[in-house]
Amino acid sequence: MKRRDFFAKSILGSIGLGALIPGMGVSKPVNRPFRKQARNIIFLVSDGMSTGTLTMADLLLRQKEGRKSRWMNYYQGGFAKRALMDTASANSLVTDSAAAGSSWGGGMRVPNGSLNVGPDGELPVPILQKFKHAGKSVGCVTSVQVTHATPASFCVNEKSRSAMQEIALKYLELEFDLMMGGGSELFDASSREDRRDLFGAFDKAGFSVARNRDQLMALKGEKPVLGIFSAGGMPYAIDRENDPELKKKVPSLAEMSQKAIEILSQNPNGFAIQIEGGKVDWAAHANDAPALLYDQLDFDEAVGIALDFAARDGETLVIMTTDHGNANPGLFAADKFSRLYTTSRSNEWVLSQLSPDNTPGQVADFIETYQGLQLKKEEIDALLKSYQETSADGLYGSTRLPNHLYARLQFPHTGIGWAGTGHSADHVELAMYGPGSENLPAYIENYKLHNFMLDAAHVPAMVYAN
Amino acid sequence: MKRRDFFAKSILGSIGLGALIPGMGVSKPVNRPFRKQARNIIFLVSDGMSTGTLTMADLLLRQKEGRKSRWMNYYQGGFAKRALMDTASANSLVTDSAAAGSSWGGGMRVPNGSLNVGPDGELPVPILQKFKHAGKSVGCVTSVQVTHATPASFCVNEKSRSAMQEIALKYLELEFDLMMGGGSELFDASSREDRRDLFGAFDKAGFSVARNRDQLMALKGEKPVLGIFSAGGMPYAIDRENDPELKKKVPSLAEMSQKAIEILSQNPNGFAIQIEGGKVDWAAHANDAPALLYDQLDFDEAVGIALDFAARDGETLVIMTTDHGNANPGLFAADKFSRLYTTSRSNEWVLSQLSPDNTPGQVADFIETYQGLQLKKEEIDALLKSYQETSADGLYGSTRLPNHLYARLQFPHTGIGWAGTGHSADHVELAMYGPGSENLPAYIENYKLHNFMLDAAHVPAMVYAN
Repeated sequence: MKRRDFFAKSILGSIGLGALIPGMGVSKPVNRPFRKQARNIIFLVSDGMSTGTLTMADLLLRQKEGRKSRWMNYYQGGFAKRALMDTASANSLVTDSAAAGSSWGGGMRVPNGSLNVGPDGELPVPILQKFKHAGKSVGCVTSVQVTHATPASFCVNEKSRSAMQEIALKYLELEFDLMMGGGSELFDASSREDRRDLFGAFDKAGFSVARNRDQLMALKGEKPVLGIFSAGGMPYAIDRENDPELKKKVPSLAEMSQKAIEILSQNPNGFAIQIEGGKVDWAAHANDAPALLYDQLDFDEAVGIALDFAARDGETLVIMTTDHGNANPGLFAADKFSRLYTTSRSNEWVLSQLSPDNTPGQVADFIETYQGLQLKKEEIDALLKSYQETSADGLYGSTRLPNHLYARLQFPHTGIGWAGTGHSADHVELAMYGPGSENLPAYIENYKLHNFMLDAAHVPAMVYAN
Repeated sequence: MKRRDFFAKSILGSIGLGALIPGMGVSKPVNRPFRKQARNIIFLVSDGMSTGTLTMADLLLRQKEGRKSRWMNYYQGGFAKRALMDTASANSLVTDSAAAGSSWGGGMRVPNGSLNVGPDGELPVPILQKFKHAGKSVGCVTSVQVTHATPASFCVNEKSRSAMQEIALKYLELEFDLMMGGGSELFDASSREDRRDLFGAFDKAGFSVARNRDQLMALKGEKPVLGIFSAGGMPYAIDRENDPELKKKVPSLAEMSQKAIEILSQNPNGFAIQIEGGKVDWAAHANDAPALLYDQLDFDEAVGIALDFAARDGETLVIMTTDHGNANPGLFAADKFSRLYTTSRSNEWVLSQLSPDNTPGQVADFIETYQGLQLKKEEIDALLKSYQETSADGLYGSTRLPNHLYARLQFPHTGIGWAGTGHSADHVELAMYGPGSENLPAYIENYKLHNFMLDAAHVPAMVYAN
């Protein structure tokens, strides 16, 4: 892999300009006596994964295929290291993904909406910049836009997570080794406000730019990689898997992860990667059970790929967790759960195909065909009625689809209930495998993971402005 | 403590009569090389505790009193042993408390509703009988009826959990050392179908019978104890704490637990006790946030008492867990959570005081006085309307109160949402402290805890009919 010198310059410059940031509490280089050093870090985050999400995906696989999820299988194997993690942000018990990601990425709590910009304007250096400076290859893989809050929280300082066009520009400057996911709308000249052709700019800067699954599979890793496979977020796993055209064009999270690890692991100094199941969070917001569970299973395959690599490699610390709960779903009637084994489409896909012009009979047939559910007449009527209400009251989020109504109508048919439509304050699951994991306490504040990762890799926890 | 010989006889008799039960898979005496033996076992179960319940109680205490829950404090301290536990029963992914308790109590999965009676009529010996046989003092403490599913699952074999009058009789025959909780209706001649005076019978059999807090506090442990402090389930902790009369008469779960450990620990051969926060489950079924969180905190005090005892004692294995999730609540809006800091009554208490004759103004004042919530006019109207609907449609459970409607009306005021009104299939939290805990794997099937406890105490895992 071609070494680039941007980083060294950038960091020397910033040390010259910036002062140590006061009040951070994370500024001392540490080098604790680990049994062994983690050369590589694979950080897997299923965004917005409540306990019920982890559980139901595991149960779905057990019932449908007779095997446990890779995550649970790892626990089953013996003495996995686990922790309960708190998820608060600097200004709320209920975090958003930007603040949660920043707690790991920058080592401090920031207000909701912020990417590594502290309450008093602190600018902690994002962790992938630190790993890059230490000579490792670094990158992110996600099922949402590569500029979305969670990957961005490991890469940049940005006051507002919504500045995704600006974040795409920052990625060009950072010259990380690999960014994969969705979000071509942030790179296309036609959709960017500044009309800059960022795909062209990345190409010119020496990147391989991949735009479909074949191009992904052909990558060899001679050059840094930008892989963008959809305009916004990528399709839900269940919709991709059941659409041969889509499956041919768009890779799964697991496929991207496999290729990313294959590429990044060519660096003899090691690598650090964040892999995000970003659409798990979107599905939870929409209370979309088929989308949620099959995206969690796609994520779980990535977990398996990481664990398998780490088991062979012996010098890789794998971390799997979530940034916060979302909607706290649960399975409340076990006899209905089998409906989910044969469902072939997300609620979002089904609802996007319906219109006020459909007859109740058409709607009933359509839902039975794609989701195996036999809705009652009054349920179909309620659903159709919602399409006739033109007001966009915000209830259904950006998709303008009756997601939450449909989730309530599904409850008696699937047994799956939802406690809300947003993030919860729940303490969350975290597990580790590999060198460094022996130091994991039973409970950890989210921001302490930053130094934990640096310590595991014997990379000094430097703090400087950038 | 007076030793009684009932047990030795009973068990010898049953070994003579009964055959080893086939197909149990738990029949081999085991004696693994532990570092140290657990002389005592304290098994704490917060019934129906979803992740959000554990989390919100912890956050409530942090925000209100600036300290963590004892449970989280234990995790914080360092390297607590934790596991994720599956909760399935023999016939469902969603267990009831009888089957869940039986998995621990008898070491096998049984159908929902059954207490240690297997799918093929197996009769595994309940764990407290085994510990008693091994010379230990044994007992149960609970905030619901002592004959309720969870305590009963450690004590008896009974095809149906609803046979609580029969279970009370079985307790008389078992002559365990201590049973404390609610349920005088199961012991009073006036409310028993057979008109037997079980309080008199326990007294005659040599028990101290305590019926109020003063009598509890006066117990010294010379005799076995039956402590029954309410007709059915005990009052919610929040209602007891804020009613001086009730607080004087009725002990808290923590007070019962403290006294129980004080008494049982007088046996030089050790003791085994189950302590159940049973009304956590009732509150979850009713979606009653104040009841849920303050009963979880009462349970948490019992956790603290157990951990403190075990830390001093050094030979006590403490297990804290739940039998299943329930309603999967979550905090979705942090700015509303402070309303819970000053609430002084459960929803159940508030709703039980209202009637169709109240004016909207009266209802608004009443709710603001006792719960600090300022409900809107249309919310008050909806609540009052539900009192005018006379049909008992089962929606509100046995209390015939509009619990679930009220929970939905509270959502914008408290930020707490609920995914259902029953048990969930969630994998659940389990933690241990003390000798034996070093053998806890990261994931454990519920029924494996049976032999785990026996192994920790070096008590053979015998299986025989009784």
